[in-house]
Amino acid sequence: MMSEPRVVADDRRRDSDTGRMLAFSDGVFAIAITLLVLEIRAPDVEHGLLDALVDLWPSYLSYVLSFVIIGIIWAQHHSLFQHITRADHTFLLINVGFLMWVAFLPFPTGLLAEYLDNSGERQTATAVYSATFVAGALLFNLLWRYAIHNDRLIDATADRRVMQATTRSYTFGPVLYLIDFGLAFVSVTASLILFLLIALLFAISPYADIHQRVARSGSA
Amino acid sequence: MMSEPRVVADDRRRDSDTGRMLAFSDGVFAIAITLLVLEIRAPDVEHGLLDALVDLWPSYLSYVLSFVIIGIIWAQHHSLFQHITRADHTFLLINVGFLMWVAFLPFPTGLLAEYLDNSGERQTATAVYSATFVAGALLFNLLWRYAIHNDRLIDATADRRVMQATTRSYTFGPVLYLIDFGLAFVSVTASLILFLLIALLFAISPYADIHQRVARSGSA
Amino acid sequence: MMSEPRVVADDRRRDSDTGRMLAFSDGVFAIAITLLVLEIRAPDVEHGLLDALVDLWPSYLSYVLSFVIIGIIWAQHHSLFQHITRADHTFLLINVGFLMWVAFLPFPTGLLAEYLDNSGERQTATAVYSATFVAGALLFNLLWRYAIHNDRLIDATADRRVMQATTRSYTFGPVLYLIDFGLAFVSVTASLILFLLIALLFAISPYADIHQRVARSGSA
Amino acid sequence: MMSEPRVVADDRRRDSDTGRMLAFSDGVFAIAITLLVLEIRAPDVEHGLLDALVDLWPSYLSYVLSFVIIGIIWAQHHSLFQHITRADHTFLLINVGFLMWVAFLPFPTGLLAEYLDNSGERQTATAVYSATFVAGALLFNLLWRYAIHNDRLIDATADRRVMQATTRSYTFGPVLYLIDFGLAFVSVTASLILFLLIALLFAISPYADIHQRVARSGSA
Repeated sequence: MMSEPRVVADDRRRDSDTGRMLAFSDGVFAIAITLLVLEIRAPDVEHGLLDALVDLWPSYLSYVLSFVIIGIIWAQHHSLFQHITRADHTFLLINVGFLMWVAFLPFPTGLLAEYLDNSGERQTATAVYSATFVAGALLFNLLWRYAIHNDRLIDATADRRVMQATTRSYTFGPVLYLIDFGLAFVSVTASLILFLLIALLFAISPYADIHQRVARSGSA
Repeated sequence: MMSEPRVVADDRRRDSDTGRMLAFSDGVFAIAITLLVLEIRAPDVEHGLLDALVDLWPSYLSYVLSFVIIGIIWAQHHSLFQHITRADHTFLLINVGFLMWVAFLPFPTGLLAEYLDNSGERQTATAVYSATFVAGALLFNLLWRYAIHNDRLIDATADRRVMQATTRSYTFGPVLYLIDFGLAFVSVTASLILFLLIALLFAISPYADIHQRVARSGSA
Repeated sequence: MMSEPRVVADDRRRDSDTGRMLAFSDGVFAIAITLLVLEIRAPDVEHGLLDALVDLWPSYLSYVLSFVIIGIIWAQHHSLFQHITRADHTFLLINVGFLMWVAFLPFPTGLLAEYLDNSGERQTATAVYSATFVAGALLFNLLWRYAIHNDRLIDATADRRVMQATTRSYTFGPVLYLIDFGLAFVSVTASLILFLLIALLFAISPYADIHQRVARSGSA
Repeated sequence: MMSEPRVVADDRRRDSDTGRMLAFSDGVFAIAITLLVLEIRAPDVEHGLLDALVDLWPSYLSYVLSFVIIGIIWAQHHSLFQHITRADHTFLLINVGFLMWVAFLPFPTGLLAEYLDNSGERQTATAVYSATFVAGALLFNLLWRYAIHNDRLIDATADRRVMQATTRSYTFGPVLYLIDFGLAFVSVTASLILFLLIALLFAISPYADIHQRVARSGSA
């Protein structure tokens, strides 16, 4: 590798800049998502284990909800770096802020698990849970918009239509979670159903289709 | 790398698609398997530490059982990607579902550890443990069958005989774990022995031999 | 790869020496930073969840402080290896010592979270927290200075001005955290504000600018 | 990459065999080593925090001891793969067994931390701790000896002198830890001092020197 021409060596260094940042981000995602299970506390009973396990439904629901959403956000974070090929110091700092949010998620997940069957406090727990995702969606938009502003960190060959579709798609995030936050004060059930719908929406979003169609036509 | 022809660059992107997904999956596997030890709770006694440690045998058994099975599933997941060379959006989602199952495993492992010496509840704990693996084996089959359907995500040069042997081998999984689930209601001991036998079976499965013979002949 | 000339093979081996060490270090950083959230203990109340969540402010503050500082130290550790291209046995051992410190950080973070609203003990907790960072900054300097001494592990093409700026920048660390340690005995609030300022200082340090300007001109 | 000749593609596949196994092993090492800190339980006192922190010395000692030893074992595991360039199914299974041992280490570390200042039980805790390392050293020898038997998984260009020195070096491990186990019944203090000496011995072992001298002369 020492004998490669200098320009290539510099490209490699740049690649490894985003490479190590991505590996670190993936590590935090993988750990945060796997720590969620620690919020499901095994029942400690002498009799009636089956009933006690059924009573843990808020824990299972919180686990599934948070796992799916983090999984989708991970996939979206992944998608960003098909366009973003460089990293500067500010971008690294915004990403650290974003990872701070990712690593925080087991806490609101645990709150939801513990208070969802407490009729007096489930509204608060759901509102805190929603507010966390509003904050995360805003951070995610900041990360993306910082990178694309004036093509700051974008590959020159990036497809403009895909990028605009991506930007539009991400803008929905904070709005939807804000509606979720508001709904928590009206109906906790409605708020959680909307959460599932948001997850579903992002999972099967038209962006994914556009993106893949473009990728396929590019490699044809 | 900028100067590589376009087709190669697209291949690299596709490689990195499965690459980052695999790295993320490996992360979740590694973390889930290492969190299992947290389910072995150190005894808190003033006297008789040795006896207290011996009494923890359900924890050691659960730890070894879950660790070996997850280790084998990791190796199988690994094997899949000797054939699967692409990933699409649906496949990523199925994999997220599969990882949700992997990350959940410390919970049923902890249940088994805690209730295996509770004569009234050990049946329930073993049945829940078995049912978890039925679900996992089904998810694993879904992952594999989605990928190979119409050669959707398969390398064109993949060896058909190896792939068919793989498919047959994976089909046994859900059936065996279902028998395990049924056995739990007859005899917990028999159910756990079958678990060990299943682990042994997959560890020394003829598939592994076929696979290696083919790999050896391919590289000769 | 078997057919590559021997010298290239040796370079690859050297690269993979620092490569695997870096991957391991990144793993420890990512896990330690993600375990911080376990120090925020969900309140266990029947009524008044919102108040209980507000009362957890010391936990949030400790979490943010430790996360940002570890994130910055990770980025600095990352920067080192733009200059360090080899590893010897002693360097690996120093790095293990440094990682032992990184992995320890959830403990003082938990201490700060638990004792910051205990008027009698918050001074001790803050002093212990500061002393931990004095030790870490010293270890970090040891790591860097061992590597650059007589160009021991440094790429021959490394830019001397950037390296000298790096060395100067790192020398401030132990001094600043020592001041922090002293301040803890005068005013806990002042000590924590200085912590935030140190994080800010390293986040926007002129070194980062120099470094990036050089990197940009190098790749131009 | 599709256009590479077939032999190279097979080499790449083989490399990625040990590659993904190594990445997984590194993940388990990194997580197990970072989970050790969870065994240091923050004191929960109203007054006298400093005294309570000093009383935690068995926790700090166990943490440092386990961290350094795991760090060294990781480095040794790392060294193995400078010789081992292939993996077969049996080797993967032995490695899973070895990782099961690595992931288990937080448990005996926690035991030692909890019972070292319990005069009646510290002997048992130290003996269990030593016995764990006897088992681990045996597993490590099994891993190495399986790989080198009849050059099963060894690079054809591997240096025989380095390999023999490595084999001799690893043979000491089980013997030394067995002495440690015996010493625990005579004097806990002597046993722990021997642990520190073993760590020191492996850290500065002549093997490391031989290895590096050879590596240096090879790349000259």
